Amino acid sequence: MTITAATPQERMHSARTASRSLGLLTDAAKTALLRSIAEAIDANVDEIVEANADDVSRGRADGLTTGLIDRLTLDGSRVAALATAVRDVAQLPDPVGRVLDDRVLDNGLHLQKVSVPFGVIGSIYEARPNVTVDIAALALRSGNAVVLRGGSAAQSTNAALISVMRGALADAGVDPEAIQTVDDFGRDGARALMRARGLVDVLVPRGSAQLIETVVTESSVPVIETGAGVVHIVLDATAPLDWATDIVVNAKVQRPSVCNAVETVLVHRDAASRLLPSVIEALQERGVTVHGDAAAASFGRDVVPATDEDWATEHMSLDISIRVVDDLDDALAHIRRYSTQHTESIITTDDDVAERFLAEVDAAVVMVNASTRFTDGGEFGFGAEVGISTQKLHARGPMGLPELTTTKWLARGAGQIRS
Amino acid sequence: MTITAATPQERMHSARTASRSLGLLTDAAKTALLRSIAEAIDANVDEIVEANADDVSRGRADGLTTGLIDRLTLDGSRVAALATAVRDVAQLPDPVGRVLDDRVLDNGLHLQKVSVPFGVIGSIYEARPNVTVDIAALALRSGNAVVLRGGSAAQSTNAALISVMRGALADAGVDPEAIQTVDDFGRDGARALMRARGLVDVLVPRGSAQLIETVVTESSVPVIETGAGVVHIVLDATAPLDWATDIVVNAKVQRPSVCNAVETVLVHRDAASRLLPSVIEALQERGVTVHGDAAAASFGRDVVPATDEDWATEHMSLDISIRVVDDLDDALAHIRRYSTQHTESIITTDDDVAERFLAEVDAAVVMVNASTRFTDGGEFGFGAEVGISTQKLHARGPMGLPELTTTKWLARGAGQIRS
Repeated sequence: MTITAATPQERMHSARTASRSLGLLTDAAKTALLRSIAEAIDANVDEIVEANADDVSRGRADGLTTGLIDRLTLDGSRVAALATAVRDVAQLPDPVGRVLDDRVLDNGLHLQKVSVPFGVIGSIYEARPNVTVDIAALALRSGNAVVLRGGSAAQSTNAALISVMRGALADAGVDPEAIQTVDDFGRDGARALMRARGLVDVLVPRGSAQLIETVVTESSVPVIETGAGVVHIVLDATAPLDWATDIVVNAKVQRPSVCNAVETVLVHRDAASRLLPSVIEALQERGVTVHGDAAAASFGRDVVPATDEDWATEHMSLDISIRVVDDLDDALAHIRRYSTQHTESIITTDDDVAERFLAEVDAAVVMVNASTRFTDGGEFGFGAEVGISTQKLHARGPMGLPELTTTKWLARGAGQIRS
Repeated sequence: MTITAATPQERMHSARTASRSLGLLTDAAKTALLRSIAEAIDANVDEIVEANADDVSRGRADGLTTGLIDRLTLDGSRVAALATAVRDVAQLPDPVGRVLDDRVLDNGLHLQKVSVPFGVIGSIYEARPNVTVDIAALALRSGNAVVLRGGSAAQSTNAALISVMRGALADAGVDPEAIQTVDDFGRDGARALMRARGLVDVLVPRGSAQLIETVVTESSVPVIETGAGVVHIVLDATAPLDWATDIVVNAKVQRPSVCNAVETVLVHRDAASRLLPSVIEALQERGVTVHGDAAAASFGRDVVPATDEDWATEHMSLDISIRVVDDLDDALAHIRRYSTQHTESIITTDDDVAERFLAEVDAAVVMVNASTRFTDGGEFGFGAEVGISTQKLHARGPMGLPELTTTKWLARGAGQIRS
């Protein structure tokens, strides 16, 4: 279903209006709505793949890397996976209407704090078209309207997906203006979204560190910051060799391009000679380039000298930095300086060290003896993931559907006045 | 204890460093710390009153209104009340260390979501010196350091209070840098605070709508917006006359200068002739100036014609606006247009109307048959109030100590890796 409104502001106004009826939908109505969207995606697979082919050929002409082309490309089975993801979200418990506090004052006034939708959620994101469907499904499941701003590389695909989803809304008797895009306004669309305080309740950027930084700096709409992970693993003096090796390898190579992959290993000086030869070798066997300080380099071959920039870099690739530290305090100081407060883990069998690490490290997720790859909504059992918040306001760490709601106090009285 | 750091940035860095040890204090240590602060305030009453006399005489010379001078003035009993307020905060339950989620994954990884301090809380506020002590006490009780920027009218008083509190921290063996001020940098101090993303975790403005708007617009530090209340009471067709009269009068006159006081009454057309003559008379008997549309004006004497501006104004005075509406939809549309999403109340005996109002009104607190003056942390049973949030992110409505904490996921494993 095509969009006719002429300006970003008009579209956001329409989304606001649509959000009012959406917020009142029952659990069953929202579930049915998401199933209809999934069916519509399945029914329109050819149209979606065709629109995607436009983006892919333009991407090739523009010289996008093979990796980016792969992220952008949709075929029949990937479109089917989008529909399946929507059906998965449909099955999640309704996050709206939870009673989070319930109290009766001495004067008889009955107070309840209940979860309610935000209203309108905005999202600014990059090339992957699956985000278009993911965010729309998560927003609708939680009773919110959504205004999307995807990357220009996926604009034909996104337009097709949004048209299909709006059609499904209209067919289900729900205001189709609940799904909006400002893609066709280019950078002006993104700017309008970031300035829409009062129309858009919260903005969730997803993509590169640079994209997120821009949104955080320029937006007057409240932002939930997701993302960048300069993630550390500390190998304490007591770290068992097998745990150290397995966890560091898993955290680096299982999926190097994601935010919960480890970037830096800090090794206690007393354990360096016991642990590092095996850890470095195991990493290199799996194609990892090891960057190290001088002390770390002495325990392996072909270790590239680490630069100051390495410590601050989220590589998103098969690169890792290793530094030998004097003690736990030295490790904690390094983490304070370079951490993006996403996930930090320590390998140790010393309970005092473990508890100090858990208490003193300031990050969304702090681990002992586990791979940092577990920081993930799916792994945490949330069923779906909105993103991983690295801020402290409202949500921290993996966000599920409840993080797409706010609260409202309901007060039921019988004439109470304040004395 | 005086502050020596030369720049706002240095002071905020010191606060950040101090926040690390503060966050690790036990419940008992924080309680003892607050009691020491209360004792120090009591012990230094003369010094504080003397500093305040400077501000008051400068205020008089600058032509401050009697009301502002009254808010600014501290005498012995008001200083004692400050100390008592600190003792009250000391007695509140520790908001840090609450386990908010606890789950063991199939692989044995034990996850806990626990409440932790934000780290550093900033506050920008206006003339009342009690805010200096209130915010510092609430921040310390919740394990946070604090950076204060009070109004220039109270600068000598604030400097004295901060010096006394810092002295108490030092005497208790706690880093005094946990309480900082940027008052002496004037507007540059406020600007530095609003730009301190990464050093300050959250900024809580308290004061006029204009102050809050400035902070919300200019701050790159996440803000918790408090305040402005264009509060409505709807008198439904079924509203009992005694409830309508008592609640409107209470909500307007009990304390007209606060944000939960009512500003506009919307009366159902079918009930106007039954309710308005008494409501208007009762208000006028208590010195309230009634502004009304033509229909409302016909039910009373001396009703001032209401302007479009009246509907959007938080009077903070003995003024009220009254409008006759066609029905509930008309009332809801008026509220959507003019509400600041603080508190809205309806007086009705019709359950369907009540439930529709509760469901459809988008505000921090939505009431049925109660005075809007109940929107208050003390009344809600929180023991203390940080402010009333009118935003949807993180906190909404009256905020207690728990709203000054964020969360952290702790993961305890035994070598788990992701497959």
